[in-house]
This record gives sequence, structure tokens and C-alpha cells, in this order.
Amino acid sequence: MKSLVYLDNNATTPLAPFLKNPLIQKMEEWGNPSSVHYAGRGPKKIIREARQNLAKLLKVSPLELIFTSGGSEANNLALQGIFFSQILPHLLSSFKNKDTVFRNRFIISAVEHPSVFKTAEYLKTFGLKLDILPINKNGQVDLNQLQSLLGEDVAMASIMYANNETGHIFPINKISKMLKSCGALLHCDAVQAFGKLPLNLNTLGADLVSFSSHKVYSLKGSGLLYVKKGVHLNALIQGGGQERFRRAGTENTLSIASLGLMAEHMLKEKLISNYFTQMQNLRDFMEEEIIKNIKIATIIGKDCARLPNTSNILFSNLNGDSLLVSLDLKSISLSTGSACSSGSSEPSSVLKAMGYSDEQANSSLRISLGWQTSKKDIVFFVKELIAVVKHLSQL
Amino acid sequence: MKSLVYLDNNATTPLAPFLKNPLIQKMEEWGNPSSVHYAGRGPKKIIREARQNLAKLLKVSPLELIFTSGGSEANNLALQGIFFSQILPHLLSSFKNKDTVFRNRFIISAVEHPSVFKTAEYLKTFGLKLDILPINKNGQVDLNQLQSLLGEDVAMASIMYANNETGHIFPINKISKMLKSCGALLHCDAVQAFGKLPLNLNTLGADLVSFSSHKVYSLKGSGLLYVKKGVHLNALIQGGGQERFRRAGTENTLSIASLGLMAEHMLKEKLISNYFTQMQNLRDFMEEEIIKNIKIATIIGKDCARLPNTSNILFSNLNGDSLLVSLDLKSISLSTGSACSSGSSEPSSVLKAMGYSDEQANSSLRISLGWQTSKKDIVFFVKELIAVVKHLSQL
Repeated sequence: MKSLVYLDNNATTPLAPFLKNPLIQKMEEWGNPSSVHYAGRGPKKIIREARQNLAKLLKVSPLELIFTSGGSEANNLALQGIFFSQILPHLLSSFKNKDTVFRNRFIISAVEHPSVFKTAEYLKTFGLKLDILPINKNGQVDLNQLQSLLGEDVAMASIMYANNETGHIFPINKISKMLKSCGALLHCDAVQAFGKLPLNLNTLGADLVSFSSHKVYSLKGSGLLYVKKGVHLNALIQGGGQERFRRAGTENTLSIASLGLMAEHMLKEKLISNYFTQMQNLRDFMEEEIIKNIKIATIIGKDCARLPNTSNILFSNLNGDSLLVSLDLKSISLSTGSACSSGSSEPSSVLKAMGYSDEQANSSLRISLGWQTSKKDIVFFVKELIAVVKHLSQL
Repeated sequence: MKSLVYLDNNATTPLAPFLKNPLIQKMEEWGNPSSVHYAGRGPKKIIREARQNLAKLLKVSPLELIFTSGGSEANNLALQGIFFSQILPHLLSSFKNKDTVFRNRFIISAVEHPSVFKTAEYLKTFGLKLDILPINKNGQVDLNQLQSLLGEDVAMASIMYANNETGHIFPINKISKMLKSCGALLHCDAVQAFGKLPLNLNTLGADLVSFSSHKVYSLKGSGLLYVKKGVHLNALIQGGGQERFRRAGTENTLSIASLGLMAEHMLKEKLISNYFTQMQNLRDFMEEEIIKNIKIATIIGKDCARLPNTSNILFSNLNGDSLLVSLDLKSISLSTGSACSSGSSEPSSVLKAMGYSDEQANSSLRISLGWQTSKKDIVFFVKELIAVVKHLSQL
């Protein structure tokens, strides 16, 4: 791949260079982890060690972690797993027995990732009651509004740790306490927080938490759902007894290996917190330079709690796609929204939920830095961005 | 991994040596295939080419193929996708309108893989009607019995192409005609047939067909569901627009690349049919030697249509697990049933469905050859097997 300035790390991250050689070696461990003979033992050990490293990193028990094929599957497993285990059976029996009382409602924020948002809407077609918690112009939820939605019919809320497009961080700890007092579960999509913030699931308070391998410099094809001991959900993929019957199918040993090795790396806390600081310093420097040099630029929700690597910037009256294409020609990669909706010309639903107009939502760029981003990258990007904005403004 | 005689190729296959270097190169294509910028283009091309190669190999349209995380997900997508799209909505509305008439029944064979069998049983808890088609001592279905189960309430049958434990092949072509006349769909789990028989989905007659990457010498973590044009199913994993909204989640580029390169390899028909012949000759040689030298050995369903690589052998009054462990000590890997149920001491449900007793089902070994299996491997295996059987019989 040609040398490029990659500023789309919320879409995916490059494979960490230190993983490459170990993974090439682990390609030899092709056995089926479920096999009891020799060929299965190496792969089984890889998965066990990965699970242990991840459990240690996230401060939970290894038995509370389910390997999936990615973040989208983890989010689907959380929502569908709870709906099909705890809601649909009651719904079906309620047709016979009208007096059945059960929790039949989910609450999600208006800016959840499509794998939460569309899954919740999908389950609504089978009878789930769904409330969408609105977001204000600063990208935050109103906790009083959340409180007013809570009740004895709420089964679960799903609120992300940090938004993929704006980087805004939600107060999961407070939210978890509210859900707990109401007797409902909390699922948290932490895909974007992982690798960007210190995470401690033991104190976070969420009952289910999702992660994805490819957002943390690991191979695509694996993800993780933390399910707190005692929470029962149905497997999304039924069949074999893998993952203690919560996720059937032969494990993707190689991607799980990469995620496990990355967890081992992330246990070096000082090293990792240096990455966090470095990304934040570069991001703040970048924003200052942009604001100083580009009059039409506004940073979205600058003063709210944000991920250290993410910046979402409005360029008044310019088209985000044109900016993206012009920068791509200069070998700079970034995006106008989540990669999952790339290629569609719809305005960002996240910015629209925050109250921006279609036109405004269409004139934004998401810049997301990574562990590998250098000052040189940022200086080059800002220089090219100034030139591109000037050129497009003159057209 | 130490040198071993691997005869468990129905559980998983070694990564084809010719794939290793191309895959190491493709690790550099870490971009998100959904990204519109430079980093996304290489990965997008990998997925497009893989889809085209697979479509050419299977003689279908690229648009009819959905990449999944594996065979279990493909089977779940087929069964759950049809149930949640075509059955549950009617079931829910039938509570209001008692006269609603709709197809609410699945038929599966008694020897389906757990990812079909358990998924069907799971859907039964939500109101699916389910019929299990019995299997005779030769491992075959009785087509008259199937005919008697067909009716206007049948939505789909799911019958595997070839059984994972015995290698028995089912007459999918005939079965598909019966289903078609009844107006129902046919799903076929072809995970075990792929790479062992020539396959032509254009003439097979099934509406949905499942495949897995790691049973054909490719990287774990991808699978494929063929869905005939015009057949509608719900996505199992909801969210982004990947796979034309039929499977959300960032694609596992590396595993899909391996499956695509393997499809390209398999398009060399002569080479591949040589593998088929080679496996069959070695398997037949092995069975002859075993029968000649081990009095207590009986080959299960020897005279039925079988995969060219699979042999399931009963050793009267011996314990399959003891045989497995003794052979493992000699660096010979094989199994007593499907890897998905390995480690459990339950007798094989496949052999039990064929009418064998618990004791008989517990005294069998599954030997499954691969493209890489040599005559030397088989000679070594037979020699060690004779010794092990002799030793165990004397205990």
C-alpha cells in the first residue's frame, strides 16, 4: 500500500507491526480448537490465553467473555440474545394469557452504531417496545430525560461508551446506576473506546459490553461480548458447544490470537497511556491549527468529554464528500461518517440527531487519529486541508 | 507443529501451503472495505474478486453469495433468516387473526450438523413446527417418507449434502424436485461436500447452500451462504449495508481472501478431480487393509454413496475414545464424531439415528483424509491401528 496519511482510525486500524510475525507463526496452528487430539491443542491454548489476557485487561472473569466474529455480531448478540431469551417467549405466551406482565422495552440513544440501532428497530417488528433517547447539540444525553423513560417495563438500555463519528463520551457509570435501580440491564457498545481510553469493566457498571478486534490494530474477524455472570442470553449462532454454548462455530483462531496478543500489549499500561496522550496532543494541535487557519471551520462538541483521537469538523457551505475526495487525491484518508454508511449520500444521522441540518451534516469531516499517527502526518494534513478548503471555496 | 498423520480433515483442514505467502502479503490490506478512500480500495477488490471466483466455481451469480463468519453462521442465517422473515411475522399476526394460513413447518434430517439441528430445535421454541426425517441403517433417508411429510404448510427443508461423520451423500437433486413441487424451499448444508466432490449449484436445485472456509484448506473465519435470486431472508447480523444488507459487520478480508484464492485454485478442475480420486483410492486401500487385518472392524454404510475421503468404522466391543487417545500418542489425529461435540462423552447422535446402540456408537472412529494425505500416512496409520486394536483387545 502506498505511503498515506491515514486519519480514519475509527473506521479501522492498521495491523500493529509487532503482530505480523507472531501471526505468521500462528498460521501453523490450523487445528480445530474443539478437537481432543494433538492438532487441536495449540489452537485451544491460543484461545485460552487470549481470553485470559483480555479478562485481565478488562478486569473481568474469562468466563464472562464471548468471542464473536466482530463488533457488529457482539452488538447483535447483546440485543437479540436478550430479546429472544427474555422478551419474545413472554410475548408469545401473552397472547394466551393477557395478564402476563414482563419487561418488554429497550431504550437506545439516538446516535448508536447501526448494529445497535437497526437491530433494535428490527426487534421492534417482533413486538419489542423501543424508546430512542434524544441527544442535544453537544452530543450528550439528558439524564433527566432518561430517568423519565425508566420504568418496570424496561428490560435493557443500550448506550454506547463513545460515539464513532463525534467521539463524544457518554456517562456510562451514572447511566448504569439509573438502570440498576430500575432493575434493567445495561448494554454498552465500547467498540470505539477500546484502545483510546483506560477501561475497567469491573467498575463500569454495564452488564454487557461489546468490542471489536479491528479497531485496536488487530486482525479483522473477531470481537468480544462481555456478559456479566448471571445474565442469561440466547446464542445468536446456535449449534456446537463453543463459548459455553453462547456462540457456536469453529473459532477464528488467528484473529482471536491477534486480539489476545494485543490485550497482552495493552497490559503495559504506561505504554498505552502514552498513546492516549500522544493522540490527544496531536488532535488538539490539529484542531488549533485548523481553527486558526480556516475561518469556516467549527469543531463539533469541542468542550464535551471526547475520545482523545476524534475530531468532527463542520466546514460551512462546503461539501464533506468533495473534501474527502480532494484529500484522498493527496493520499490523506478520512471520512464523512461511519464506514458502515460510506458510499451512501445520506447525511450523517448522528449529526442530524444532534440537531444539525441536512446541509450542515453534509459539510462535516471526521478525522480520527491512531497510535501510529505522527506530528509530520498532522502537519501535512493541515497544510493540504487549508489548500483544499481554499480551492473548493473559490469554486 | 510436530510431524503428524492428520486424518481428521472433516473437522478442519490444514492451510494450503500455496496460500501462506499471498496471505502474508494481504495482511497489508488492512483498510475497511466500506471506506471510499484509498485504504478501502484494496480490501474491496479482494472481496469482489473472491466473490467472483466463488460464483464462477459454484456456477451462480456473485450477487447470490453472502459471506459469513463460517459454516455455522451460514446454516443459522439460512434457518433463522427464513424463519424470522417468513414465519414469525405470520405467527405473531395469527394471534389476532385466527384464520391466517401460512407455511410454518421445517423438515430436517435426523443427522444434520448441530448448527442446523439445534437451530431448528431453537426456532421450535418460538412456534416453528418441526419434522425430523429418520435415517436408515445405511445412513439414507427414505424418500417416500419425505414425500409423506410434504404439504402446503412446509416452508423449508434442510438436508445436508453429505454427512460429516459417515460421509454419506444425500440425493439433493431428487429432494429438491420434491420440495419444489410442494412449493417449499430447500436449504442444503454443503460444508462437507465442498472440496471433496464437484459441485454445481446451478443444477443442484437447492435454494440456499452453506459452505465453510476452513474445511477447504483456507483460513478460519469465513463461510458462504448461497441464496438463490428471489429468495428473501432476514439478516442474522443487522446493521451496516455490507453484503447488500444481508450480513452486517466489517468483512474478514484475510479469510475471505483465502477462500477466494482457494476457489481460483479449485477452478483448475483436473487438478482438483485428481485430489478426489487420490483420496478415494487411499481411503479404499485403507478400508481393505483394515478389514483384512482387524476382525472386529465393520465399515459403516460402505456400499452407499459416500464422500471419497471419509470412513466411519465400528470396532466391536472397543471404546472409540480409547482408540483415539492411543492413536494420538502415536501422532495420529482422528476423531470419534464431529469436532463440535468433541470432549463430550455422549455417543454419536448420527450413529444412533442410524439405529446403532449406544455401545456401538461409542466404539466407532471417523477417519477423514485430505488432499495432503499420502500413501505413507495410510500405511503408517493402518500399522499402528492394528497394534492399538490388538493391545486394547487384550486388556
